[in-house]
Amino acid sequence: MKSFAIKTPSKEIEKDLLTKIDFLTKPKGSLGKLEKLAARIGLIQQTLSPKLLKPHNILFAADHGIIEEGVTVSPKEVTWQQLSHFSHGGAGINFLCNQHGFKLVLVDAGVDYDIPEGRGIIDCKIRKSTRNYLHEPAMTPEECDLAIERGAGVVDKVYADGCNIVSFGEMGSGNTSSSSMWMHAFTGIPLADCIGAGAGLDKPGISHKLDVLTRAWENYSGDESPESYIAWFGGYEMVMAVGGMLRAAELGMIIIVDGFIMTACILAASKLNPAVLDYAIFGHQGDESGHKLMLQALNADPILHLDLRLGEGSGAVCAYPIIDSAVRMINEMDNFQSVGVTKYF
Amino acid sequence: MKSFAIKTPSKEIEKDLLTKIDFLTKPKGSLGKLEKLAARIGLIQQTLSPKLLKPHNILFAADHGIIEEGVTVSPKEVTWQQLSHFSHGGAGINFLCNQHGFKLVLVDAGVDYDIPEGRGIIDCKIRKSTRNYLHEPAMTPEECDLAIERGAGVVDKVYADGCNIVSFGEMGSGNTSSSSMWMHAFTGIPLADCIGAGAGLDKPGISHKLDVLTRAWENYSGDESPESYIAWFGGYEMVMAVGGMLRAAELGMIIIVDGFIMTACILAASKLNPAVLDYAIFGHQGDESGHKLMLQALNADPILHLDLRLGEGSGAVCAYPIIDSAVRMINEMDNFQSVGVTKYF
Repeated sequence: MKSFAIKTPSKEIEKDLLTKIDFLTKPKGSLGKLEKLAARIGLIQQTLSPKLLKPHNILFAADHGIIEEGVTVSPKEVTWQQLSHFSHGGAGINFLCNQHGFKLVLVDAGVDYDIPEGRGIIDCKIRKSTRNYLHEPAMTPEECDLAIERGAGVVDKVYADGCNIVSFGEMGSGNTSSSSMWMHAFTGIPLADCIGAGAGLDKPGISHKLDVLTRAWENYSGDESPESYIAWFGGYEMVMAVGGMLRAAELGMIIIVDGFIMTACILAASKLNPAVLDYAIFGHQGDESGHKLMLQALNADPILHLDLRLGEGSGAVCAYPIIDSAVRMINEMDNFQSVGVTKYF
Repeated sequence: MKSFAIKTPSKEIEKDLLTKIDFLTKPKGSLGKLEKLAARIGLIQQTLSPKLLKPHNILFAADHGIIEEGVTVSPKEVTWQQLSHFSHGGAGINFLCNQHGFKLVLVDAGVDYDIPEGRGIIDCKIRKSTRNYLHEPAMTPEECDLAIERGAGVVDKVYADGCNIVSFGEMGSGNTSSSSMWMHAFTGIPLADCIGAGAGLDKPGISHKLDVLTRAWENYSGDESPESYIAWFGGYEMVMAVGGMLRAAELGMIIIVDGFIMTACILAASKLNPAVLDYAIFGHQGDESGHKLMLQALNADPILHLDLRLGEGSGAVCAYPIIDSAVRMINEMDNFQSVGVTKYF
C-alpha cells in the first residue's frame, strides 16, 4: 500500500499564535472554540495569518455487497440515482456547497451502474460494488491499494486548483455497516455500540444488522493489520476517502471531517498514519448511535451538533462558516494596543 | 409601559411545511435541526418558501451603577471604548457581521461618556449609567418605559430598511449581574446558580458578586410584577433590547437570541408578552454558568455550543449561516417526485 509522508506541524509557532489571539480586543478566551480553531489552523499552516483557499467537498460513491443481507432501508439504486442527482444540483450537499462557496467534486468509486459520461462525475470505479463481507473480503488487497491511490489522486487535482481546505463526503447504501465494522476493529468498542439506524432502520432492523455484522466479524479470517481490516470490511468510497485524507495531510491541507462514515475513515487513516489527525477538524457530531463514542476515542471535539445523518459531506460543509469565522477573527480583529481600548482581562 | 400586539403564528400551515420537508431528497429527518429550523421559520413567516432579508444586529450599550460594588473585572471605560471601537470596525462583532452580511446598528442606551457625534452611533441615551441597585432601583419607571419605546423605535427603523431577521447584542460592564438578577426573579432558580464569571472573574470574585447580588435581592422593595423587576435591576441597554424584541415579534420578524444577557432579555420580554418566544431562535449556548439553566427554563434548544462569552451579538450572528442553511434547504432542494430518485425512507 502507498505510504504517505505526513509531517507533524512544528509546535514552535504555537506560543505566538496564542499571544496574538489573547491580545485581540475581547476578554481573553471569550471567543471560545473560535480561538481554539484559529490556533489549530495557524499551526497547520505554520502562520499567524492563516487563509482558507478554494474549499472543495470531494464526494465518493460506491455500492456495498453486504446490502444483500438486508442491513439498510435504502435500496441499492439510490446510490447511483443520488450520485446522478448531485451532478444536477438540488440535493442536500448542493445547497450547502453553493452557500459556502465549495466546489463539489463527484467521484464514482464503485457504483453498481454504468454512469453516463459527460456529467462531470470522475470515473475512479474499482469494481461494480464490493463483495459481501459476510462470506469473503469486500475487496482484494490490490483493489484496496488502488482505491487509496485513486483517492489520493483526486486530492492532488483539487490541490493543483489552489485548494487548501477539503472535506470528504460519501454516498453508498450500506456504508454505515462498514463504518461500524472499522470502528469495532480499531477501537475495540463492542459491536452493539458501534451500530445505529443508518438511513432509518427501526429496532428490529437494527437488531438484524447487529446479527449480520456479528456473524461477519466471526467469519473474519484476516490478520490484525489495519490494511487487512480496511480491505475486508471497507467500501471503495470509504477507502478512497482514506487515501484522500492521507494525501491531503501530506500536502498540509486542512481536512474537515463529516459524520459517522467519514469519522470511521479518518480513524482508519490514523491507523495507517497517526499524523493525519494533526490536519483534521471535526465538523459535526451526528445522530448515528456510536458516532459520539468514536469521536471520544479520537479525542475529537466537533464544531456542530445538529443531529444530521445525511452524509454527502453535509456536516463538514455546514461547519465551514465557523472555521471561516475563526480565521477571520485572527486576521481581522484589532488588538488592544493598536486601538486604545483598556485590556479587560 | 407600551404594550405590543404580538400574534401567535397560525399552526395551520405546519402540516404542509412538514410534508414539504419530508419529501426533499434525503432520508426523512436526516437534516436534523435544519429541518426543525426550516419548519419554525416557515411558521413565523406563514409560507412554504421563507426568505431571510437584510439581517441586522442591533447592539445597545450602557453603563451600570452596580459596578461600584466591584462585581466585574471590566473597568467602566471599556463600555464607551468598545462602543467607539465597534464604530471603527475591528472588534469581534465586526468581522462576524462582515462575514454574514449583517448591518451593525450601534445604539448608545446609557453610556457614561459623551459619545462624539458623526460616528453613526444612534443616540438613545436615557441617562449616563443606571443607579446602583444595591441601594435603589437602577432606573425609574419612566426611564424604563422610555427605554422600551426607544428600543422598539430602533427596530422600526431596521424593519423600514427591509429587514426581517434581527439579532440583538450588548456592551455594558456589569450587565451579567443584571441578567442574573432577572433570571433569578423570573425563574426562581437560586441566585448562586444564576451567577458566573462574567468577562473573567476568579472564584473569590464570583463569591463577592454573589454576596453583593444577594444583598441587592434582599434590599428589593418593589412588587412582583415583571415591570418592577425589569426597572429595578435592569440596564438601559437590556431594557431597550426587551423593547426591540417585543416590537420585532409584533412585526413578525425572526429574532436570533445571543448569549446569557440576551437570553435574560427575551426571558424578561416573555414575562411582558409570552408570544415573543414564537419568534425567537436561540443562537448559542454560552460559557456563562447559568445560561444552560436559563435556556432550559425557556425550553430552548440553541443552535451552537461554541463556549463564546463575548456578547455583542456574536453568538447570534455566528449562528446565522445555520439558519440560512435551513432556509436554503427548504427552497433549493428537489423533492423525490420531481427528480426520479427512489424515496429512501
